[in-house]
Amino acid sequence: MQIVSTMRKMSSISDELRKDGKTIVLVPTMGYFHEGHLSLMREGRRRGDVLVVSLFVNPTQFGEGEDYDIYPRDFSRDKGLIEGIGVDILFLPAVEEMYPGGYQTFVEVERATKLMEGQFRPIYFRGVTTVVAKLFNIVNPHMAVFGEKDFQQLVVIRRMVEDLNMGVEIIGMPIVRERDGLAMSSRNSYLTSDQRKAALSLNRSLQKASQLFRSGERNPGRIIEAVRRVIEPEREVTIEYVEVRDVKTLEEIEIIEEQAVIALAAKVGKVRLIDNLTFREE
Amino acid sequence: MQIVSTMRKMSSISDELRKDGKTIVLVPTMGYFHEGHLSLMREGRRRGDVLVVSLFVNPTQFGEGEDYDIYPRDFSRDKGLIEGIGVDILFLPAVEEMYPGGYQTFVEVERATKLMEGQFRPIYFRGVTTVVAKLFNIVNPHMAVFGEKDFQQLVVIRRMVEDLNMGVEIIGMPIVRERDGLAMSSRNSYLTSDQRKAALSLNRSLQKASQLFRSGERNPGRIIEAVRRVIEPEREVTIEYVEVRDVKTLEEIEIIEEQAVIALAAKVGKVRLIDNLTFREE
Repeated sequence: MQIVSTMRKMSSISDELRKDGKTIVLVPTMGYFHEGHLSLMREGRRRGDVLVVSLFVNPTQFGEGEDYDIYPRDFSRDKGLIEGIGVDILFLPAVEEMYPGGYQTFVEVERATKLMEGQFRPIYFRGVTTVVAKLFNIVNPHMAVFGEKDFQQLVVIRRMVEDLNMGVEIIGMPIVRERDGLAMSSRNSYLTSDQRKAALSLNRSLQKASQLFRSGERNPGRIIEAVRRVIEPEREVTIEYVEVRDVKTLEEIEIIEEQAVIALAAKVGKVRLIDNLTFREE
Repeated sequence: MQIVSTMRKMSSISDELRKDGKTIVLVPTMGYFHEGHLSLMREGRRRGDVLVVSLFVNPTQFGEGEDYDIYPRDFSRDKGLIEGIGVDILFLPAVEEMYPGGYQTFVEVERATKLMEGQFRPIYFRGVTTVVAKLFNIVNPHMAVFGEKDFQQLVVIRRMVEDLNMGVEIIGMPIVRERDGLAMSSRNSYLTSDQRKAALSLNRSLQKASQLFRSGERNPGRIIEAVRRVIEPEREVTIEYVEVRDVKTLEEIEIIEEQAVIALAAKVGKVRLIDNLTFREE
């Protein structure tokens, strides 16, 4: 595994790889790896000749009062965790090189970023699309792998890639859960053990939604209501939103006919968690 | 000269050219060519192995009430004018392919787009940076050539390319003028002969600025005042702005020490014209 820490070096390696006809796959991450990240990397490894993992805690996607400063960082732990996965290049750009003085350009997806997460994190997606656009330009991958845990992010990135003709194939990978059902997240490390127990209500509520769907319920309002009833008894948990949306456009739907996703966000103590589930006809 | 009208075809040609080690130069245009465009193409021809000229009247850079619908278009005239220049590919994407239903992604340079043109054309630069980002992704050029006539546009595009790590070399080319000094523009075709005479005051005013600079004047306010005094007697001409700015950042300057540009916009009748001049130490 080669560690690359400048954009120039990364670009020139990619140019050479492209000239040699190699397929480059990028897995963009903010580090503090868990099994979710590893599943993206394994898929990347399987899909391409060269697997590049970027590790960059991107300041432009954190709002005022969010956890940029305390976001968990542990490079030697991360390095150990990905041994054996077959990462070819670990790309670690510096903040000062990514956002030098005078920086002022942003990529924005408009409608799909205003709802759900966008209502609670107004600059989040602008930061995500901007850094992903930059990483795509620097690494120049053929494919990039993202997790479905950040479902809206995946939709927004697909939209950006299509709209701006980026020519990168976007691969979405299923949520990886802890044994007890909690969706894996670097932010789970913030939870106390009591909060951790309370947080299980999120996945439990989605299981309830799935069960309703399987038993024929197609009314989003009734499913959302049932989900809320599972979470609301938990004193430590405050729901931010529970929404049922079209999987491709994230538009609201009156009745579940096409593929739909139920997505939610909640605060467990001060820790903000998200989770979602895609309804699939069997 | 090959005419390419789909994005997919253009991308696949570029991929092949890159694999063969060819240097691709793009000259993005909105057509209705004049000598200014031809000078960009000749420079592009000189610099690269393959010269791609795009011709696309980009709707997202025209504001409400601007001239998108009547912008001059004459393809057979344009085709005739560039014969003999050595254009390899003329890329003519369709509006419906560039901006399909559901389109919602924009690239924005923030500070440098708020001043000068940005105060009179609030969505202009957003449209320009977005379409240029798209064209760069589709054509994947090594270099792109733009005219200094749209001086602020050139600064904004350089900023975007640097900020988003686009890896495209941006080449700026000097303004080409008519014999009588009027900066060439596709919009000059809108002028009546009286307006055309009145419009000469723009270049005359810049010549006055240049003369003051050469005689040692370094105070932007005094130069701007002198420029306004040349234009203001023309009844048909209404100044929108006259500004002296740093050539790289477009920031205001108190005294001309580093390279500076004087840029102006004015309406001649209903026709909006821009012009500029860079002060150079001799």
